[in-house]
Amino acid sequence: MSTTDRIRNFSSGPSMLPLPVLEQAAAEMTNYRNSGMSVMEMSHRSQVYIDIFDETKADLKRMLKIPDTHEILFMQGGATLQFSAIPMNLITKTGKAAYAVTGNFSDLAMKEAKKYGDISIACSSADKNHSYIPTQESITLSGDESYFYYCANNTIYGTEWKYVPETGHVPLACDMSSNILTIPLDISKFGLVYAGVQKNMAPAGMAVVIIDKELAGKEFPYTPKLLSYKLMIDSDSMHNTPPCYTIYILGLVLKWLEKQGGVEGMEKLKTKKAKILYDALDNSSFYTGCAEKPSRSDMNVTFRTPSDELDSLFVKESVKEGFENLKGHRVAGGLRASIYNAMPEEGVVELAAFMKDFETRNG
Amino acid sequence: MSTTDRIRNFSSGPSMLPLPVLEQAAAEMTNYRNSGMSVMEMSHRSQVYIDIFDETKADLKRMLKIPDTHEILFMQGGATLQFSAIPMNLITKTGKAAYAVTGNFSDLAMKEAKKYGDISIACSSADKNHSYIPTQESITLSGDESYFYYCANNTIYGTEWKYVPETGHVPLACDMSSNILTIPLDISKFGLVYAGVQKNMAPAGMAVVIIDKELAGKEFPYTPKLLSYKLMIDSDSMHNTPPCYTIYILGLVLKWLEKQGGVEGMEKLKTKKAKILYDALDNSSFYTGCAEKPSRSDMNVTFRTPSDELDSLFVKESVKEGFENLKGHRVAGGLRASIYNAMPEEGVVELAAFMKDFETRNG
Repeated sequence: MSTTDRIRNFSSGPSMLPLPVLEQAAAEMTNYRNSGMSVMEMSHRSQVYIDIFDETKADLKRMLKIPDTHEILFMQGGATLQFSAIPMNLITKTGKAAYAVTGNFSDLAMKEAKKYGDISIACSSADKNHSYIPTQESITLSGDESYFYYCANNTIYGTEWKYVPETGHVPLACDMSSNILTIPLDISKFGLVYAGVQKNMAPAGMAVVIIDKELAGKEFPYTPKLLSYKLMIDSDSMHNTPPCYTIYILGLVLKWLEKQGGVEGMEKLKTKKAKILYDALDNSSFYTGCAEKPSRSDMNVTFRTPSDELDSLFVKESVKEGFENLKGHRVAGGLRASIYNAMPEEGVVELAAFMKDFETRNG
Repeated sequence: MSTTDRIRNFSSGPSMLPLPVLEQAAAEMTNYRNSGMSVMEMSHRSQVYIDIFDETKADLKRMLKIPDTHEILFMQGGATLQFSAIPMNLITKTGKAAYAVTGNFSDLAMKEAKKYGDISIACSSADKNHSYIPTQESITLSGDESYFYYCANNTIYGTEWKYVPETGHVPLACDMSSNILTIPLDISKFGLVYAGVQKNMAPAGMAVVIIDKELAGKEFPYTPKLLSYKLMIDSDSMHNTPPCYTIYILGLVLKWLEKQGGVEGMEKLKTKKAKILYDALDNSSFYTGCAEKPSRSDMNVTFRTPSDELDSLFVKESVKEGFENLKGHRVAGGLRASIYNAMPEEGVVELAAFMKDFETRNG
């Protein structure tokens, strides 16, 4: 099939991958670089696979400038299993942790953590339907929390933290599922950063965890073995068979990303792409952005037309024009365009043109 | 690259997949059946993906004749996370469980379970280096165990249970990672059957769990949400994003399997393939099979030459002839040929010929 038959996929995750990555995966599917087998078929202990694994880790370490104090883990279960793993490893230090509740997923993470210790809400945006990110000043900590947890980008509500919170001696644990690899990071500021891979990294089924090694080794006696950060560090994520093919695709994505200028290149591109859509909203009296301007996400642009009926019509017509997954999440309603790294600028330009056209016809 | 460049992959897992499956996956990689996207890129809530998911489940249900009393779950973390999930869901009934220790993985499962309750060893083959499967008569149960756990096929030692244990009212929990889909099963006899998918089903990164729904809902308060069988049943394995692409490949494998005559066809084929290799061992004074004859696995044929040096030479020469992964597991040593469903009969015939030739030159 022609690749020109591909649609513009604005899904919030799983979401689009770079076409060259998919093409390479297809070309290497039955015989990876003369190994005589698919990456799917390789023993995870074989040298040919270990080379893929090591190179992927090294590329990620270089691209995110991860210091030697921190270790990269590939863990199964996506972000949701980390909702449990984080308290099951880190909360024992003081029995307490603080959560910033700024959307659906941080709320779910907070509720799961309550099973394991004393949880306080350091700040929340629930008062305004999660349309903004709280300021540094509004964050309340007692200082004896084992960690402070926040979600850097809220896919559902379309808000994004524009700063890294200052929390003194309390380590930061951050869910970057939807904006990892889109901006340079100073990893040394974080105790733990993690990301479900299905938005900016790879197909669904894994989380990348970047952890300060000093935080590991304090799990509960009942923490499942495979959720122990210590065991995962000691076994280099290979205590059991890792999701080998997912790691391979992540490796291809990282090679592609490096060619686009790495996270610095992605930062420029995402700023440009988001501006195109937010300008389209701001220059219109038809569309309304859902997030407050200073908190707008560069990854998930949430907006509405003047009515639910027009929202539905927008979705229906957009599909005919080759745009997919523009319907907002069921808990938020409205419309949403998710524009992760793999979405090219042309896709966003085309969407903005469609929006203008739709407004002209229905405004 | 030509598919004739593919090697004969005897890996114990991840292991070979049917070539037509890989070819179809490659062909559909950038544009799945005119959807305009890769399966990797699909929202798991989209109709196009739900259709893949539902069809895969339905095919598995039909092929294994799974009764309506049981539910199929797709869970991340492989078999190892089930070592924890099983006690974390099932042991609360009486606080006790019994394990058959017949190899490396059942031993690991037993040790993990000890974190969650009172564990007894119902039987063990450790006295003879796990070279046999204990008889029904040797299984000791008190009758008040929450479940009886065993591993139906031991990949490392090359032994396989030839019977389903009778345990009265104690539900069976069985690890079938390395022999699921190779024989017809009466699922109604089992409380829970599970399999890491990377041997006979799909690429690594998932476990298929088939559970009697009556057993669910008894997890500990601290059981991670994503390990709750009840939650997974209630959400149809979609509480969070499942490993979508892995499920898609499983679907392709099941379609392929059906064309080969389903599990009945696989049973005939595996019996034939195993006989070829075991006959090669039995008709030789050079090779020795590691497992006792009545307990021999049809999936993993473990054997030795007269010396460690010749074992090493065998591996080295076999690679030159296009056979991969014939080295035994590090805890068992020796040689091992894993011959799961995707290994064609020709592959086994070729290996037997190589074995004979090697013996002639070194015997």
